[in-house]
Amino acid sequence: MIQFQCDYSEGAHPRILERLVRTNLEQTVGYGEDPYCEAAREAVRKACGREDVDVHFLVGGTQANATVISSVLKPYQGVICAHTGHINVHETGAIEHSGHKVLAIEAQDGLLSAEAVRAAVVAHYEEDGPEHTVQPGMVYISFSSEVGTVYSKSQLQALNEVCREFGLPLFIDGARMGYGLASEGCDVTLQDIVSYADVFYLGGTKQGALFGEAVVIVNDALKKDFRYFIKQNGGMLAKGRLLGIQFLTLFEDGLYFELSRHAVEQAMRIRHVFKERGYSFLVDSPSNQQFPILDNQTLHRLSEKFRFSIWQKVDDGHTAVRFCTSWATKPEAVDALEAML
Amino acid sequence: MIQFQCDYSEGAHPRILERLVRTNLEQTVGYGEDPYCEAAREAVRKACGREDVDVHFLVGGTQANATVISSVLKPYQGVICAHTGHINVHETGAIEHSGHKVLAIEAQDGLLSAEAVRAAVVAHYEEDGPEHTVQPGMVYISFSSEVGTVYSKSQLQALNEVCREFGLPLFIDGARMGYGLASEGCDVTLQDIVSYADVFYLGGTKQGALFGEAVVIVNDALKKDFRYFIKQNGGMLAKGRLLGIQFLTLFEDGLYFELSRHAVEQAMRIRHVFKERGYSFLVDSPSNQQFPILDNQTLHRLSEKFRFSIWQKVDDGHTAVRFCTSWATKPEAVDALEAML
Amino acid sequence: MIQFQCDYSEGAHPRILERLVRTNLEQTVGYGEDPYCEAAREAVRKACGREDVDVHFLVGGTQANATVISSVLKPYQGVICAHTGHINVHETGAIEHSGHKVLAIEAQDGLLSAEAVRAAVVAHYEEDGPEHTVQPGMVYISFSSEVGTVYSKSQLQALNEVCREFGLPLFIDGARMGYGLASEGCDVTLQDIVSYADVFYLGGTKQGALFGEAVVIVNDALKKDFRYFIKQNGGMLAKGRLLGIQFLTLFEDGLYFELSRHAVEQAMRIRHVFKERGYSFLVDSPSNQQFPILDNQTLHRLSEKFRFSIWQKVDDGHTAVRFCTSWATKPEAVDALEAML
Amino acid sequence: MIQFQCDYSEGAHPRILERLVRTNLEQTVGYGEDPYCEAAREAVRKACGREDVDVHFLVGGTQANATVISSVLKPYQGVICAHTGHINVHETGAIEHSGHKVLAIEAQDGLLSAEAVRAAVVAHYEEDGPEHTVQPGMVYISFSSEVGTVYSKSQLQALNEVCREFGLPLFIDGARMGYGLASEGCDVTLQDIVSYADVFYLGGTKQGALFGEAVVIVNDALKKDFRYFIKQNGGMLAKGRLLGIQFLTLFEDGLYFELSRHAVEQAMRIRHVFKERGYSFLVDSPSNQQFPILDNQTLHRLSEKFRFSIWQKVDDGHTAVRFCTSWATKPEAVDALEAML
Repeated sequence: MIQFQCDYSEGAHPRILERLVRTNLEQTVGYGEDPYCEAAREAVRKACGREDVDVHFLVGGTQANATVISSVLKPYQGVICAHTGHINVHETGAIEHSGHKVLAIEAQDGLLSAEAVRAAVVAHYEEDGPEHTVQPGMVYISFSSEVGTVYSKSQLQALNEVCREFGLPLFIDGARMGYGLASEGCDVTLQDIVSYADVFYLGGTKQGALFGEAVVIVNDALKKDFRYFIKQNGGMLAKGRLLGIQFLTLFEDGLYFELSRHAVEQAMRIRHVFKERGYSFLVDSPSNQQFPILDNQTLHRLSEKFRFSIWQKVDDGHTAVRFCTSWATKPEAVDALEAML
Repeated sequence: MIQFQCDYSEGAHPRILERLVRTNLEQTVGYGEDPYCEAAREAVRKACGREDVDVHFLVGGTQANATVISSVLKPYQGVICAHTGHINVHETGAIEHSGHKVLAIEAQDGLLSAEAVRAAVVAHYEEDGPEHTVQPGMVYISFSSEVGTVYSKSQLQALNEVCREFGLPLFIDGARMGYGLASEGCDVTLQDIVSYADVFYLGGTKQGALFGEAVVIVNDALKKDFRYFIKQNGGMLAKGRLLGIQFLTLFEDGLYFELSRHAVEQAMRIRHVFKERGYSFLVDSPSNQQFPILDNQTLHRLSEKFRFSIWQKVDDGHTAVRFCTSWATKPEAVDALEAML
Repeated sequence: MIQFQCDYSEGAHPRILERLVRTNLEQTVGYGEDPYCEAAREAVRKACGREDVDVHFLVGGTQANATVISSVLKPYQGVICAHTGHINVHETGAIEHSGHKVLAIEAQDGLLSAEAVRAAVVAHYEEDGPEHTVQPGMVYISFSSEVGTVYSKSQLQALNEVCREFGLPLFIDGARMGYGLASEGCDVTLQDIVSYADVFYLGGTKQGALFGEAVVIVNDALKKDFRYFIKQNGGMLAKGRLLGIQFLTLFEDGLYFELSRHAVEQAMRIRHVFKERGYSFLVDSPSNQQFPILDNQTLHRLSEKFRFSIWQKVDDGHTAVRFCTSWATKPEAVDALEAML
Repeated sequence: MIQFQCDYSEGAHPRILERLVRTNLEQTVGYGEDPYCEAAREAVRKACGREDVDVHFLVGGTQANATVISSVLKPYQGVICAHTGHINVHETGAIEHSGHKVLAIEAQDGLLSAEAVRAAVVAHYEEDGPEHTVQPGMVYISFSSEVGTVYSKSQLQALNEVCREFGLPLFIDGARMGYGLASEGCDVTLQDIVSYADVFYLGGTKQGALFGEAVVIVNDALKKDFRYFIKQNGGMLAKGRLLGIQFLTLFEDGLYFELSRHAVEQAMRIRHVFKERGYSFLVDSPSNQQFPILDNQTLHRLSEKFRFSIWQKVDDGHTAVRFCTSWATKPEAVDALEAML
């Protein structure tokens, strides 16, 4: 069986493993204060083009989302996000568990619009007695989104502006940041992310690392005491250097971006394969997740050789599925898919 | 100005105040363990037709909702409710503050259907990896609902059945229970409520008391240590007898139901007044809240003499408003409204 | 049986009840935005000698403590208090329930010293990795304390100074503020409280009201959006005017202080009665709570006619008990106690 | 510099790394449902001598503690532990953050006694109004303890009995379980742990793995829906197999115990080295943490070549320090220490 089911089927890029092996018996202090973490923070800062951002390494995405969001919000505030946002649907209520309502807004193709944010915030303050409802306290978006789509630079700018106008920090979930930045037609750079977001993260888990997410705090007001938040939320890895070594390897010479481009290339091949055979798509995605709509027969036939996700029933005869590529996807796997189709 | 804005504009029914005055200098133990609370619990049990229910008196509705819900749910569970449910929209995220997601479902006219509940629960367990999403842990409905509508006996029975099938306690917010039971055409009795709900409350604040909600726990599994929950959530009134005296007065000889009937009668008069003049309604309510749709001119004219709530803009020329009656509404107030129309 | 068990055995001062009766059928807006609340806020501000403080009315003490503390602290911070502090021992973990550790410090006679606070804070920051422990975020004291003792002006000043030095808001639980200020030998005024505390409350429940605590926020940084906190924590009374009417009556012409003096006078009589008969005391209290140590025989004999609290076993033959007076204590009750001894 | 500062200075045992490298490009499903996790669960069950326990792999200790404890307690309950317990002092209030009070009890040498537990529970229920205080809901101990000490079999049995009597689950934090079981004079086996605990974990982070703790749930009542808890608390590793591979390697043929014995052997050598030179110890530890008391001069001299923890000032001239060994401690490191002394 060939896996297109998700982007975390394999371990890590070999260079990461080699370095873990090479450094294994070195003795370092714990909790992210070792030299590897320091070097990795520098490498991330350099990639961001900003020396003054804070960089913290956490283990996983749900943890990163809950830790960041609960560090930003006041107890009576909620976080605005697309109804398809990962925090709204796929984290077992981790945000609510931290005491905050997810203010989900209907969104097209996984993308939250500046207009929708504005409308929600204005509506809150127009209430007769706004203190009876949850106050919008920040905005969460994913780049790339949960359905593979990617914000344009002007969309990000508009979100940034509405956030600034209302004093709402903008948080970008970058579990698939690399895949988003490498996506077809993308006009956004990592430097743009830095200038539009107040806080974001660069996902490692789905992008070549064994695990790990690099949280980048841009807004000074959000930097204070963040290590307390990490520790309290169970996200402070004792052997923090494992994270340092991984992110150093990914960022010191551009491996992160290289791997991202590879994944998107393979995804574009998959898109092409389906498109030229006349399949339609649930959503038009330029990044590493593709959502072709399959008739039952094709679905059944492909299932014999490939693993992919059943996403959404379209009608009795058709189902939207997800094919996911990653840094580890072999071109031969796509060849095989093409051959079968 | 004559107030139709809400059902908590005045103090309490005079008989309650008289009794508070009469008993004022008696010395009793605190925290709801005095003889008045005991007698009130007995009176509520008698009205419910069940000797084996637990009765606790809390101060307010948001407090009652948050305390009951957080006593029922496990940390990873959420509460299913209509998207219009009070806990979803008007309690500043008190439920999320206690760590639980509100699983809001689109509902018609404020009423949650058994089918919608079933669909939501089934969908959860059909997920590939249900532990990645919030588990439905209970169902919340309001009787009467936030827009004045009332479940029929068969609707309640269907909800009860789906809840039983999936092991979900059914909680009925009865902030306006009396007005619901007294509503026009209602085929539900308090005894029915007792037999369909696992836990519910009889609202006092909007129904003739200064304040107070009587939580009735029917399901044995939910009774244990409830006083700890009340205390921890700040709901244990030191002079608990104030609640005892009020609920004793309301329930010892049927005053609660009498006051409810009065409020609904006046509301039906209001409905009639608008209807016979050709006004349409946002929702067809048989209870103490009426939602006529007013043209701008009428809206403006009525505002000079009456206070009522602006509910929802319908179109540029029309707005749905809310007229609320209560135990304290004077027939002369409705006369005045009729006269002005 | 004559009650000396607590200071909330009776209802409210008759003038409060009279006013509730007199205003009962007036129609007002809810949630503390009515004219009575506004007037009461003004009266409290006048008593405080400061026009720029924010005043909010909550229903009870546990609620007030949890609401204020969770409004001040960041998620990773805790509140320093005496190990005997009410929040540490008698509120069912309401503070921890809101996510915060109570940093309890051993304290003599219920009073927290500035030195102890300083030592705790310094110790935290001297840790190797302070982020692994809870950061002290504020200081909580009670005035009068849980064992009737009262801080001197210089003690309060010292606490204020250490709090200022470390940026820790000082919160004074004033459930018995009046009794503390009226205590024998007290050199602290309400104006002093205002100048030393960042936030405090004036207790009503134990001081002549049916219920209610007036939270006074002095520090501008703590004022923002406090109504959201009240609502989310279930403390926003629908008929807020009930609180307004009570506090207006207590503060418009000094009734609060008059009632406090009465209670302390009766307590001093009780102290004298025991002292002149050679009884010793668990703690030397100048306020409305007295803790004589009784031999078993006296304990048994007094129990036949009086209710009081068993506080702490001292040795096999002796027990410390608590006699509590209040605004409602009749001089004849103390006469009866004297007669029996 | 030679590190004796902690037991997580190095990476992982080489056999673990080799296996991670060997399996790196295999494709597996995520979230702990892969074949390696399944095999590791089987290996752990076999080591435990029980087929019916549930085994879950989490990333770190604070996370494991908070997840287990919040899965066991009801909202108004707290966890009893020694005042030196890791959850009480070194996890940034993660337990309180989950809403629960840590009921810390003074304990000798890091060990909680059955008598102290009984006294605390009895005291709670003897209160006049126990619902005003936090209800003890479970007991937490560490094996080995935070200061290296180890419970005897009869002490564990006594704790188990008092827990059973009061219906309190017993949770054993086994971050250093292997080192405890391998400690000098220990009469407890892993099978004993299984029979006395309701839930415990086998630490990997400090015992040869890169990271990871294997939570073992013995008590059926605590098993339900535990994966929801893991996910909600951010502890569900996407590439769960990393945990599976590590624990499989540690447990399939006894490596875990072998590494533990090695660490204790080196610790005993350190103890001997200090003892025979007349140094006294803060606590008499039979496991991998040693707490010699050093005079200032020795402290200074050793600091030039070794890293160890400053634990506690004893007097002006002496300080207790901690020397920690681990699976990775080289005998030559202890030789060097001996040579210098």
